[in-house]
Amino acid sequence: MKVQRQISVRAYESEGFISRVQRCIRESVIPYQYQVLWDRIPGVEKSHAAMNFVNAGRALRGEDPGDGFYGMVFQDSDVAKWLEAAAFALAAAPDGELEKQVEEMISLVGGAQDEDGYLDTRFTITDRDKRWTNLREAHEMYCAGHMMEAACARFEVSGDDRLLKIMEKNAEHIYRRFVEQGAEGWPGHPEIELALLKMYRATGNRHCLELCRHLIDVRGTDPGFYAREEERGWNVWGGWDGHAEYTQAHAPVREQTDAVGHAVRAVYLYTAMADLAAETGDETLLAACRRLWESIIRRRMYVTGGIGSTVQGEAFTEDYDLPPDTAYAETCASIGLMFFASRLLENEVKAEYADVMELAFHNTVLAGMQLDGKRFFYVNPLEVDPGISGVAAGHRHVLPSRPGWYPCACCPPNVARLVGSIGKYAYGENGDTAFCHLFAAGRVRFDNGMELTCETGYPYELRVSYTARGEGTLAVRLPGWSRKTLLRVNGSEIRPEVRDGYAYLPVSGETKVELELDGEPKVIRPSVKIPRLAGMAALKRGPLCYCFEGVDNGRVRALRLNTKKAPRVSEFQPELLGGTVTLTAEASRIVDTDGSEPAGLYSDAPERTEPCEAVAVPYYAWGNRGENEMRVWMNT
Amino acid sequence: MKVQRQISVRAYESEGFISRVQRCIRESVIPYQYQVLWDRIPGVEKSHAAMNFVNAGRALRGEDPGDGFYGMVFQDSDVAKWLEAAAFALAAAPDGELEKQVEEMISLVGGAQDEDGYLDTRFTITDRDKRWTNLREAHEMYCAGHMMEAACARFEVSGDDRLLKIMEKNAEHIYRRFVEQGAEGWPGHPEIELALLKMYRATGNRHCLELCRHLIDVRGTDPGFYAREEERGWNVWGGWDGHAEYTQAHAPVREQTDAVGHAVRAVYLYTAMADLAAETGDETLLAACRRLWESIIRRRMYVTGGIGSTVQGEAFTEDYDLPPDTAYAETCASIGLMFFASRLLENEVKAEYADVMELAFHNTVLAGMQLDGKRFFYVNPLEVDPGISGVAAGHRHVLPSRPGWYPCACCPPNVARLVGSIGKYAYGENGDTAFCHLFAAGRVRFDNGMELTCETGYPYELRVSYTARGEGTLAVRLPGWSRKTLLRVNGSEIRPEVRDGYAYLPVSGETKVELELDGEPKVIRPSVKIPRLAGMAALKRGPLCYCFEGVDNGRVRALRLNTKKAPRVSEFQPELLGGTVTLTAEASRIVDTDGSEPAGLYSDAPERTEPCEAVAVPYYAWGNRGENEMRVWMNT
Repeated sequence: MKVQRQISVRAYESEGFISRVQRCIRESVIPYQYQVLWDRIPGVEKSHAAMNFVNAGRALRGEDPGDGFYGMVFQDSDVAKWLEAAAFALAAAPDGELEKQVEEMISLVGGAQDEDGYLDTRFTITDRDKRWTNLREAHEMYCAGHMMEAACARFEVSGDDRLLKIMEKNAEHIYRRFVEQGAEGWPGHPEIELALLKMYRATGNRHCLELCRHLIDVRGTDPGFYAREEERGWNVWGGWDGHAEYTQAHAPVREQTDAVGHAVRAVYLYTAMADLAAETGDETLLAACRRLWESIIRRRMYVTGGIGSTVQGEAFTEDYDLPPDTAYAETCASIGLMFFASRLLENEVKAEYADVMELAFHNTVLAGMQLDGKRFFYVNPLEVDPGISGVAAGHRHVLPSRPGWYPCACCPPNVARLVGSIGKYAYGENGDTAFCHLFAAGRVRFDNGMELTCETGYPYELRVSYTARGEGTLAVRLPGWSRKTLLRVNGSEIRPEVRDGYAYLPVSGETKVELELDGEPKVIRPSVKIPRLAGMAALKRGPLCYCFEGVDNGRVRALRLNTKKAPRVSEFQPELLGGTVTLTAEASRIVDTDGSEPAGLYSDAPERTEPCEAVAVPYYAWGNRGENEMRVWMNT
Repeated sequence: MKVQRQISVRAYESEGFISRVQRCIRESVIPYQYQVLWDRIPGVEKSHAAMNFVNAGRALRGEDPGDGFYGMVFQDSDVAKWLEAAAFALAAAPDGELEKQVEEMISLVGGAQDEDGYLDTRFTITDRDKRWTNLREAHEMYCAGHMMEAACARFEVSGDDRLLKIMEKNAEHIYRRFVEQGAEGWPGHPEIELALLKMYRATGNRHCLELCRHLIDVRGTDPGFYAREEERGWNVWGGWDGHAEYTQAHAPVREQTDAVGHAVRAVYLYTAMADLAAETGDETLLAACRRLWESIIRRRMYVTGGIGSTVQGEAFTEDYDLPPDTAYAETCASIGLMFFASRLLENEVKAEYADVMELAFHNTVLAGMQLDGKRFFYVNPLEVDPGISGVAAGHRHVLPSRPGWYPCACCPPNVARLVGSIGKYAYGENGDTAFCHLFAAGRVRFDNGMELTCETGYPYELRVSYTARGEGTLAVRLPGWSRKTLLRVNGSEIRPEVRDGYAYLPVSGETKVELELDGEPKVIRPSVKIPRLAGMAALKRGPLCYCFEGVDNGRVRALRLNTKKAPRVSEFQPELLGGTVTLTAEASRIVDTDGSEPAGLYSDAPERTEPCEAVAVPYYAWGNRGENEMRVWMNT
C-alpha cells in the first residue's frame, strides 16, 4: 500500500554537511557512548548498561549475578540504541574495532535472553516474578522495541541476523503472551509498535505485524487497566493522575484528536500508527494520524520544530502554549516527529511532511548535540537568560550549556542513530519513482536501478544539483518555505508537473536536475494566538532558524529588530561554529541618555534607542561559545 | 527610638474610596467568613475552624471532643484573622450582632487554652505529646501570633482585654519554654515575632519583647536544627531540600542579603525585624532590613507591587525573574510588604517606603478581592490567557477568575484585617508631627491633639485637600511617581521644606493644605534586565497600574501600544467597575490583509497592522466582568 518507502541505509553515501555530522557521530559519539556503557569514563554518571547484560546472562546460567542490576528500568535501551547507531555507522565506514564491539555486545544480549524468549535484564537479574506485571512503567516492551530496531539495523547493514533471530524469538514470546494467551494491556511507553513493523519487514514474520496491530488497537480501550495494574502490583514512580493522557491511552487511538501527554511517547505511537496504516491501508488509522499531525504542526510546535512545551511530564500542553524560555522541546521528541513525518510520507507524498522533517532535523535535533559531539541537550529552549535559566524555579530544566551525559541517556544515542540513518529519511522510492525528500549531498542507489548524485552546500548554499542515471521519475520536493524556486533540467528551466509540493520529472539516461531555492532571509511572525510571542519576530533562512547570542550582541533582550529591512547574509565563514553563514539585521538598542543600559527596575522615562546591528547564528549551533544569553524570538 | 509610629485604629474615620472598600469588608466579607468558619455555607470548602476550638475545649475538660480536629495545621489562624478583622470593623461601625459573635468566639478561644497557657486546637485535640516537636511545619507559633494580633486589635478598639490576657498567658508559656528553659529552634513560619511587638506595646510585658528578640536572633543560627527536628519526629509535608531558604533560616537574619523563600514568610519576618530595630535602635538589624528592602524593590518586585515570582514554594526566585503570566504574587505577600514598609517608616520617614505601600495596596492587595467582596485571588498574575491560564502545566495556579473560598483561606481575612486598619498605615505621628503617608480621605485625631480632615477623590482625583486643626508640623508625602506636585497652604503656593520625599509644614490654628499631584498617565518601561518584559510598556496613573482586558479590546495580545502619544484619561465613570477612570491609548492591531486575525502558526508575511484604540482599566478591578484575556505589559 505504501506510496513511498525508505531506501536502505546502505544505499546512501553522504557528503558535505551531513557527512560531517555523521563523522562526528562515528568518531566521537559512538566510541564515547561505548565507554559510557561500560562505565569507563571517570566522572560520568554510572551507566552499568553493558554489565546488566553480563549479569543477566550469569543469572540465567545459575551463576552469581555479580553486582546485579543498576539503572533505570529502561537501562537496556541504552545498549540497544548504541547497537543501532553503531550498525548504521558501520554502513558508512568499515571499522574493525567497532565491528568487534558490536559482535561482542550482541553475544551479551543473546546470553541474557531467557529460554522462553524473554529479554530484559532488570527482571532477569531481580524480580523475575514481576515480569509483565507493570506495563505502564516497567518499559519491558520499550526496551524490546529498541533492541528490535537495533536488530533490524544490524541485519540491514551487514546481513548479520544473529540479533534479528534473538529479537524474533523475543517477539514470539510477547506475541504468545498478548495475542495468543490474551494478556491484557499495552505498553506505557509506545516504541515496540514501530519496531515490530521493522521486524515484520526484515523477517517476514506475520506475528510481528499482528502483534503491532494488536497493541495499537487495544491501546486506550480499557480505562480501568492502569488502575487494576497498580492495585495488583508495584510501581516505580508512584501512581498519579493523568497517566492515561501522559501515555496516550486516554482513548482508543482512532478516536484521539489532539497530541497530548509525553511528547516522545506520542510521536513514537503516531509513527507506528502511520506506518501500520501505510502497511495495511487502514484509512481510519490514517485519518487519526492526519488529525494528530495537524494538532502538532498547526497549534503545538515551536518554530524550531521542537514539541512538548512543558517539563511537567515532558509533555504537550494546550494549543498555542509555546513559551520560549521554559520550553521542554526534547531532542528525542523532534527525532520522533521526524519518524512520524517519514511514515506519513509513506501514505501520501506531501511536501509539508518533509518540510517539518527538515525543520526538526536542522534545528532542534542538531541543536541537541554540541558541535564536537561531546555534550548534549535534552531540552531545547528558544530563550536562555543566564542567572535565571537552569536556576530559577520553573526554569531549572533549561540548561544554558550542554551537559556531558545524563542519567537518563536517551537523547545522545537517539541523535546518533538518526544521523547515522539520515539517508532513509532523505530518499525514498516506489516502482520507478525516486523521491528526494531532504537535500542531502551524496550518492544514492535506488532499488529500481536509478543512481543519483546530489551536490549541494545545503543548508547554507541553497542550490541543489542532481545527476540521475537511469530511467524513471525523479520526484523532488519544492520546500514550502521557498518563495521562488527555479528548476532546470539539463540546463533548461522548466515548469514541471507539481503535486503536493513535489516536482515529478521524467528522467532517462544521465539527467542533470538543478534546483535553485529561495536564499532570502525570512522574517517569521508568530500567530497572535501564541500568548508569549505575539508581536515578536524570528529569522530563518532556508531550513535554518536563527538565534541571537550574547557573545555576538551583548544584552540581546535590549534589542529590537528592524523588520522593514531584510537582514544581510554573510559569506560562508568556515572558521565560525564549524562553518556557517550569519545574518545581520538592522536593529536598535534600548539605552540610557548616555548610551549605557538604563538603570532602575521600572521607569517612566521615554524609551531611548540607538541604531545598531544584530548578528544571528543558526539555532542548531547555539551554546557552543560558552554560557550566554540566547533568543530566537525578538522584539521588533 | 521610633521616628514615627502608627496611629490608633480608632483615630481614623474613613471616607471615599477606602470607606467603600471597608464597607464591603464589613457588610460582605466578615459576615461571610463567619459563616464559613462555622461551615454554614453550602458548597464551600469545609473550614471547621470554629468547631476546632469547641472541640479543643471539650478535650481539655475531659469531655468527648466531638468530631475532633479538621483542617490544615494552621486552621486556628482563620479564626484569629477573622477576629482581628472583626475588631477593626467594630471600630468603624458599631454592630451588635458582630460584637456578640466576637465575644462568643473569644470565649471559645479561652476555653481551648490549656492550663499552662498552651493554645493550639490541633495539638490539644490530638497528638498532645507532639506539641512543640515540629517548629518547622506545625505552625503553633504562627497561629499564636495571629491570635495575639487579634487580641491587640480587640484591646485597641474596644478596651476589652479578655483575649489579650489569654494571649499574654500564651506568650508567657512560649517565653518559658524557649527563653527560660532554652528549647531550641525558631518557627518555620515567621509571624509571632511581629505580633509579640504588638503584645509588648499593648501589655507592657517585657517578656513579649524578649521573646521576639530571641526568636529573631536565634533564627538561622543553627544549620542542623531542621534536620534534627525531622529525625526525631514527624512531619506534615515531608522533608525537602531548600526549607532553610524557604523559611528564611539559611543564615542569621543580620547576614541575609537577598529576599528569598516563601514570600509571605519573608516579609512577615522582615516586618518584625524592622519593628524591633525601631523599638530597640538595633542598627545592624536595620541595615539588614534595608538590604532586604533593596533586594525586593530594586530587583524582585512586580510593577503592581506583587512579590514572589513562582508558585513553587510561593517564593522569591532570582533577580529580574518577573514573568507576568506565571507570577505567583500572592495577595498576602503584598499585604506583608505593606507591613514591612510601614515598619521601615518607623525607622526613617522616606517617601519610597510609603510609595511602595501605596503601590501594593492599590494594585495587588485590592486585586485580591472581587469588587463585591465575595470572591478572592491568592495569585495575582500580570497576564492571563483563557485556555492556558489555570489549565496548562506551569499555569495551573493562575486562575482567570476569583474563586469563592480556599481550603487554605489566608488571603481573604488578610485583606479584611488590612483594609479594616488602613488608617494605621495611612497616618502616623511623633511628638507634634503628624505624618500623612497615604492619601486616605476621612478624619484623623492624633494623640498630639492635632485634628485633620482629608478630602480627596483619590486615587482617581489626584488632588488632596487637608484641613488641620492644632499646632505642630504636618508631614505630607510627595509621592515619587508625581513628576509635578503643587502645594498650597491657606491658598498660597509654597515651596516647603522637603526631606526624603516628605514636605514638612508648620501648622497652627486651622490650616488648609492642598496638594495637586501629577494626573498624567505614565508609560512605564521595565528594565532590560527583566527577560520577559524588555521592550514592553505598561500604563500607570497616580498609584494605579492599568491593564487591558479582552472585554474592552478583543484579542489583547494582537495590540501594540503607540507610546509616543499620551493616553487619554476618561471622566470618572460611576457605573463602571464600582466607579473608575479608564485610559485610552492609541494602538495598532495585528491583522490579516482583510482585517481579520492572521491565520497560521508561523508566517513569513510582513506584519500588517491597523490603527485602533486600546482601553485600559485599573489592575485592581480586573476579572470582574467574566473570564477574559488580561495583560499589564503590552507590546509597543
